[in-house]
Amino acid sequence: MKLATLRDGTRDGTLIVVDRGGERFAPARSIAPTMQAALDAWDEVEPRLRALAEALDAGKAESAAIDFARLGPPLPRAYEWVDGSAYINHIVLVRKARGAEPPATLETDPLVYQGGSGVLLGPRDPIPLADPAWGLDFESEVCVVLGDTPQGTTKDEASRYVRLLMLANDVTLRNLIPAELAKGFGFFQGKPATAFSPFAITPDELGGAWRDGRVHLPLRTWLNGGLAGDPDAGPEMHFSFFDLIAHLAKTRAFTAGTIVGSGTVSNADPARGVSCLAERRMREIIEHGKPATEFLKVGDRVRIEMQSASGASLFGAIEQEVVPFTKGRT
Amino acid sequence: MKLATLRDGTRDGTLIVVDRGGERFAPARSIAPTMQAALDAWDEVEPRLRALAEALDAGKAESAAIDFARLGPPLPRAYEWVDGSAYINHIVLVRKARGAEPPATLETDPLVYQGGSGVLLGPRDPIPLADPAWGLDFESEVCVVLGDTPQGTTKDEASRYVRLLMLANDVTLRNLIPAELAKGFGFFQGKPATAFSPFAITPDELGGAWRDGRVHLPLRTWLNGGLAGDPDAGPEMHFSFFDLIAHLAKTRAFTAGTIVGSGTVSNADPARGVSCLAERRMREIIEHGKPATEFLKVGDRVRIEMQSASGASLFGAIEQEVVPFTKGRT
Repeated sequence: MKLATLRDGTRDGTLIVVDRGGERFAPARSIAPTMQAALDAWDEVEPRLRALAEALDAGKAESAAIDFARLGPPLPRAYEWVDGSAYINHIVLVRKARGAEPPATLETDPLVYQGGSGVLLGPRDPIPLADPAWGLDFESEVCVVLGDTPQGTTKDEASRYVRLLMLANDVTLRNLIPAELAKGFGFFQGKPATAFSPFAITPDELGGAWRDGRVHLPLRTWLNGGLAGDPDAGPEMHFSFFDLIAHLAKTRAFTAGTIVGSGTVSNADPARGVSCLAERRMREIIEHGKPATEFLKVGDRVRIEMQSASGASLFGAIEQEVVPFTKGRT
Repeated sequence: MKLATLRDGTRDGTLIVVDRGGERFAPARSIAPTMQAALDAWDEVEPRLRALAEALDAGKAESAAIDFARLGPPLPRAYEWVDGSAYINHIVLVRKARGAEPPATLETDPLVYQGGSGVLLGPRDPIPLADPAWGLDFESEVCVVLGDTPQGTTKDEASRYVRLLMLANDVTLRNLIPAELAKGFGFFQGKPATAFSPFAITPDELGGAWRDGRVHLPLRTWLNGGLAGDPDAGPEMHFSFFDLIAHLAKTRAFTAGTIVGSGTVSNADPARGVSCLAERRMREIIEHGKPATEFLKVGDRVRIEMQSASGASLFGAIEQEVVPFTKGRT
């Protein structure tokens, strides 16, 4: 089942069910007004949403064509956005780029940071850039949306709390990061609003590609129409989503609608390209002594998409353009 | 005006208006069902809530006595909880306790971290402790609740976005912090659910004590009935809430209901005591070579309150007891 949020002038938009082809939708507001409301009452709501999805696929529900420009992020504002960094290759390359060592516990203790979740971007929303010197970068990720997750949840229990999956562009201001990390409190200014894919999908939509808490499919990113990378999101995800959930739940509980990210998808094989420019720049430094790739500038376009083995777009595409920041416009 | 949230079995509870004496309340659900709903439509809702508060104080509204055990945190789940660390004395002492240097930009660049906001504790909720070795500590703080705050908001503009003030107990697991900070991504497991005061109050309730983005009153903390500290929250708040808001808004916008904390209130004068045990332990180390104070254990009780110059409890008291953590109970 694919779900999405249609902007309607309200803060949280309207929940819609999307057909298998990702082209038409049926309003679901009679079942649950918003995505958050659906997640809040998932056990009761899910079967009714699935019935609507089946009717939609059978041509038996009132439907309309999706206008992707009108879609918000599946959760326009979420109660938590916790981003992991589960691909070791990404950590090693990005730390090298900052002249920093990877942490000693790289392979045993997951890296996670708490991101801002009150203002999130839709799949076609522009990325506002106030200062090109900030070093704007994209980060293509896979993420899961949790149901109510108790403190003390173990890795073995984690799968039962995964309600939905999405793609994310975890927008990053690279040049603000080193000074923030030097202060010791983690990221804040360096992580502006994150963008999400058009659709949030249930794990069964991925079939056998969803296993062991990983999505075993390539995640493709294009920059200005050229393929930047197509790394496989599966085998090199050192910590699975189940590992990440167990790590998060050690001392805390999570409310329905909490989003957990994989971190930048990254493969050790350079032929698979990159899911962020920081990695490409680091590879250039290693090979040529200095980076040739610039960070994003106004007018640049980023596209992120994941296709099934048969070529269907699973989450719809994130397609964003960098625009100048104008105060007072959001 | 004092507002609060009454638990009613729903996730977000019911908005209530509290009388000036902090003893009786009138349900406000006919004006706005929840605190978040009130903040979402503040300009329209605020005058109606104030009219109800006036009727309540005049004995002209239906009212009932407050049962503090039934109060949730004013926002049972918030879209963001961003905690500053604006009292330089606290930073210096706590870093000393960890054997770390204060950051080079201590006095020019505010320290802030993004906290978990999906699960928050009410003023009488117990603090569950799974492992005494984690080093449970309290941190008494003042915080503000924002309205919609645009990216690029300056210090001079910040006051217009402060809707409400609260007190917080930013519960901390001291012994989990060093390993987390060593990884470079900031706090996560070391910061379990934060507790908030019974009432969220409008700035005018503070009269002249609210000025320059600071609350110029002592914040009192008791541990097991003994006064732990009564530092003034005003003059030594190096970065005001307006400074903090401008810092946060440099690269991001914030949705209504975002909570911003001051960090642990701390005065350089040791006679004012402490708002967290880490500071007391550091003072013991400096004076006697080793700490005598233990971190919190099951059965310990923490009380946090702020009184006006005339002795009235402004926010009601946070009163929490440490209890053993039981998986499956929240």
